[in-house]
Amino acid sequence: MRGFARRQSVERAIAWLDAQLQPLDPEPVPLRMAARRVLAESIASNVDVPGFDRATMDGYALAAESTEGATSYNRLPLTVIGDSLPGRPFPHHVGAGQAVRIMTGAPMPEGCDAVLPAEWVESTEATSNVFAVAAVSPGKHVGRRGEDVTRGTAVLSLGRRLRPQDLGVLSSIGVEQVHVYRRPRVRLVITGNELLPAGSRPHGHCIVDANGPMLAALVERDGGLVDFPSLVPDEHDAIRDSLYTEADVVIVSGGSSVGVEDLAPTLLASHGELAVHGIAMRPSSPTGFGRLEHRLVFLLPGNPVSCLCAYDFFAGRAIRALGGLSKAWPYDSIIAKLGRKISSPIGRLDYARVRLVDGDVEPIAVGGASILSSTTRADGFVIVPADSEGFAPGSEVEVWLYA
Amino acid sequence: MRGFARRQSVERAIAWLDAQLQPLDPEPVPLRMAARRVLAESIASNVDVPGFDRATMDGYALAAESTEGATSYNRLPLTVIGDSLPGRPFPHHVGAGQAVRIMTGAPMPEGCDAVLPAEWVESTEATSNVFAVAAVSPGKHVGRRGEDVTRGTAVLSLGRRLRPQDLGVLSSIGVEQVHVYRRPRVRLVITGNELLPAGSRPHGHCIVDANGPMLAALVERDGGLVDFPSLVPDEHDAIRDSLYTEADVVIVSGGSSVGVEDLAPTLLASHGELAVHGIAMRPSSPTGFGRLEHRLVFLLPGNPVSCLCAYDFFAGRAIRALGGLSKAWPYDSIIAKLGRKISSPIGRLDYARVRLVDGDVEPIAVGGASILSSTTRADGFVIVPADSEGFAPGSEVEVWLYA
Repeated sequence: MRGFARRQSVERAIAWLDAQLQPLDPEPVPLRMAARRVLAESIASNVDVPGFDRATMDGYALAAESTEGATSYNRLPLTVIGDSLPGRPFPHHVGAGQAVRIMTGAPMPEGCDAVLPAEWVESTEATSNVFAVAAVSPGKHVGRRGEDVTRGTAVLSLGRRLRPQDLGVLSSIGVEQVHVYRRPRVRLVITGNELLPAGSRPHGHCIVDANGPMLAALVERDGGLVDFPSLVPDEHDAIRDSLYTEADVVIVSGGSSVGVEDLAPTLLASHGELAVHGIAMRPSSPTGFGRLEHRLVFLLPGNPVSCLCAYDFFAGRAIRALGGLSKAWPYDSIIAKLGRKISSPIGRLDYARVRLVDGDVEPIAVGGASILSSTTRADGFVIVPADSEGFAPGSEVEVWLYA
Repeated sequence: MRGFARRQSVERAIAWLDAQLQPLDPEPVPLRMAARRVLAESIASNVDVPGFDRATMDGYALAAESTEGATSYNRLPLTVIGDSLPGRPFPHHVGAGQAVRIMTGAPMPEGCDAVLPAEWVESTEATSNVFAVAAVSPGKHVGRRGEDVTRGTAVLSLGRRLRPQDLGVLSSIGVEQVHVYRRPRVRLVITGNELLPAGSRPHGHCIVDANGPMLAALVERDGGLVDFPSLVPDEHDAIRDSLYTEADVVIVSGGSSVGVEDLAPTLLASHGELAVHGIAMRPSSPTGFGRLEHRLVFLLPGNPVSCLCAYDFFAGRAIRALGGLSKAWPYDSIIAKLGRKISSPIGRLDYARVRLVDGDVEPIAVGGASILSSTTRADGFVIVPADSEGFAPGSEVEVWLYA
């Protein structure tokens, strides 16, 4: 029942954490599953896209010189000898004075170097004779082989988070699967003898687990794969067993402080390394983390606001980085004017939930670590750094928007 | 092989579309599946959270008056008669001069209205007698029943996109499932006789489908459920059959223009309503959309940049709105200075792919509807409205960032 002897700064806690973080090993995934995953390889094309010259307009493929001098006063006859359609090329050579009807995207026949647009052609009747009424220069309305992607070109680089159009380009160069960083497996260990599992109705002196559903959604947002079999009793053996898991990351919620009933820190210190315990921030001060063999283990406070805040500062950062994603918060931020002051003691970082009211920032809670509804009423949060006493009304502050 | 008689403005096309858009019917989903879904109901709590008064600190629960006048020079004796732990309340009344050891989160025993922090208590030896060395006022370090959520309070409103912490609060009030808008089912109809399915290696005069994988990722990003059984041949009956589907939205890629081989517009016009066909924009001009019975049908150009752009302007907007999400683009935007001019004729909206180079905006492509790699090299795009001739170098422009 005693407090922390001393609390580490958030910066030092993050410095230890960042030194642990590198992306997990790559795994192959089919292209259709690869959206938003992070490339663990750089990809160059070993084909040209398109693999052939093609029309970029509907019209007549021909040798440009067959139209030389054509005007509406000097119509030049062309003999139409066939059609070229996408996927169904015209298979013969096209000579001087000859033309092939061609559709956008269709291959240019042999002997052709330009497309005469349909509106520059006059047809006589339903015969194969038409007249060019304008000239085209060589290359006109032709998309060259390799114009989209040239064989040998680097297409996407290691570390790229794949966008929808990236999948399109990868598909077009014949890629069937890509190597991306493995998603971290994250075991949730939600402790608290007062807890009922999500889906229960609260009764008596029990409350329903809020941290489990919240953490599961946070972990999935950050690219992790959640393993959350059930609540874990506040018992030494049960917590110890839950730490030895297949997961890459273990998140324990509850019992993270220094009381006699706070089992997790002692367990982690004796079985692994408790690198950080007690952090100069509010809420979330009783947060710890370290390693157990290959795993990163986070000990988050059971109070749900503390749990959310500590997740976002530390565990989420690690999960994103292990999957190859940016360590930065996945929240947009805006700069807005503070309507009322936020006070904060020097030496402690504060996490203030705020609302935006007519564009102004209204603080709604700094303390109240147990009041999770403060984070649903809030539009976001403002961070007061440890070296600041807070912000005066009218200050411009950065608001991180919950999403 | 003739062009559009006239093209509609983007604004008028969107006006028709928006008039069709309302969220689909609600469906119940378990809380654990509800992250990022959109509430189709408002939710009030019918319980207090917590359902009991509880300690917000480790210490001794007692009647505050038992500590009245206590200082380190006037230590007041307290008889410790038991413990209150989370989920394991102390079951008896606590009288004057008595105290119960209590942990953060544990229920306040009957007769207690304050918690005396552990550091304000001196214990003699291992007996049940301790001394208060400071006084506490009634209510101190006590979290009141309902302090997080009061029974009857509105917790979340219809239209809310559920955040991780929302799931926490819903769980805490005993919610097991929520009603959210159904995700739209989206059938992809990718046509083009020159196409090989994704995963093929390009060869001969064929190209590999880029639009299918790209559209699937876009639809999933926007909350839709993708149905993409296989490529569809450029044949009247095959395309017609693929329009009559269970889906809420059909997206046809390819054959969307006015040529004789462009089957989809004629089919949609004869079986349903082709409300918009031909739009004053570049790329994506040969885009159409309308209805077939209950379905929205989008006819997107086969050129992949056009396909991406038309999806983002029209189909994506519809898919998001049907699922209850914002119609706005899911892209962040920034304002930045243009390094080189972008020209655009009056009367046509242009979609310019751009890169950010040292903070300046460098246009890399306006035309080139077939060059999908322009959208992977780009960081985002700039829109030139139809009533603008473009932007001079040094202009501040809004850049929408691809993600």
